Amino acid sequence: MTITTCVFDAYGTLFDVSAAARRAADADPALADIWQPLSEDWRRKQLEYSWLRAITGDHVPFREVTGNALDWAMERHGLTGDALRARLMDLYFVLDAYPEVPAMLDALLAKGLRAAILSNGSPDMLEAAVSSAGIGARLEAVLSVEDVGVFKPARSVYDLVGTRMGCAPEQVLFVSSNGWDAAGAAGYGFRTAWVNRAGLPMDRLAARPHHVLSDLTTISELC
Amino acid sequence: MTITTCVFDAYGTLFDVSAAARRAADADPALADIWQPLSEDWRRKQLEYSWLRAITGDHVPFREVTGNALDWAMERHGLTGDALRARLMDLYFVLDAYPEVPAMLDALLAKGLRAAILSNGSPDMLEAAVSSAGIGARLEAVLSVEDVGVFKPARSVYDLVGTRMGCAPEQVLFVSSNGWDAAGAAGYGFRTAWVNRAGLPMDRLAARPHHVLSDLTTISELC
Repeated sequence: MTITTCVFDAYGTLFDVSAAARRAADADPALADIWQPLSEDWRRKQLEYSWLRAITGDHVPFREVTGNALDWAMERHGLTGDALRARLMDLYFVLDAYPEVPAMLDALLAKGLRAAILSNGSPDMLEAAVSSAGIGARLEAVLSVEDVGVFKPARSVYDLVGTRMGCAPEQVLFVSSNGWDAAGAAGYGFRTAWVNRAGLPMDRLAARPHHVLSDLTTISELC
Repeated sequence: MTITTCVFDAYGTLFDVSAAARRAADADPALADIWQPLSEDWRRKQLEYSWLRAITGDHVPFREVTGNALDWAMERHGLTGDALRARLMDLYFVLDAYPEVPAMLDALLAKGLRAAILSNGSPDMLEAAVSSAGIGARLEAVLSVEDVGVFKPARSVYDLVGTRMGCAPEQVLFVSSNGWDAAGAAGYGFRTAWVNRAGLPMDRLAARPHHVLSDLTTISELC
């Protein structure tokens, strides 16, 4: 079956999650040596908490998970202060998009393909990120897990693509820079591309992505 | 209600998961600089894969998850070879118990308490670890998630304690060095002690442990 629809993960895939801590360090030299490990722990705990809450059924919006993870990471690195916490959270709402994103989306649209986001993010976070990156007009849908109340890689999240966009799994190319998300989407039945920006080994999970890329520039060639 | 039963997580709590890579390095100087990051990645991926499989329903025994995680970690650190992989997996089956474990279990038994393990480990792994540590006679039960086919912190895993040992959640002190496991057990309804050996911040999840300790020596005082 032909691919008609490209669905993108948001955080880490279209938007650079390290941009929040990096921008905070640009404005505050005291963070120069610490922003990278802080950002890595923040991201790691954010994912861990999303998975653990999916297992125990204790769902809360991603905004809250993101704040919980930041609290853990700040404590680990000896950082305190409501002002710093608020600044980092604000910056997380307006992350940089990767530079190739607008042209990549234009190339999809030029081929007559539909483009959408499917993200753990809560609708307020996604609206802010899409607006800040200026890519809203290129997206047919911005789908949030909030509509099903559980985080990826639960199957009910991937179901949102079919129920909202009216396409079969085989018509979807799902794109994620998160290996576990790409594996989950491949196991669900989507064609899947893993954007391996960091050059990491492939995750050994139940399914493997169909394509491995180093960035998003050639996505339209897969459709 | 009075605590009658102490239930211990196995890996990281009774058994030192870093011992496998450390022992391999003792016998192979080429691993001297790499065994610690290798061991950390191995453990991190082992946990990630267990959580992700719990969400997607793709359960396999923990032995297989442990091997998958080792494959990822070896690739990341540029290590190859079936012999090294086999040696590390063999060593994972005979991990060192933490030195305070036997006396701590004796103190529980002297107070008339029951002691058991509840672990992600497959029965063959747990039998080898318990036997190698020589603590089998002190344990009334060694419960494996294999009986329910999903990993922690799924509630059905914690249910095993009640169904197998005939006690109410309020009669159980659950002990884990894994913050996420302690949080899951506390949310389930067990009294819970988190053994924070590494001095990490407390995880920000739906529930928090009742006690925080730096090692296992004082467990019997909590009952």
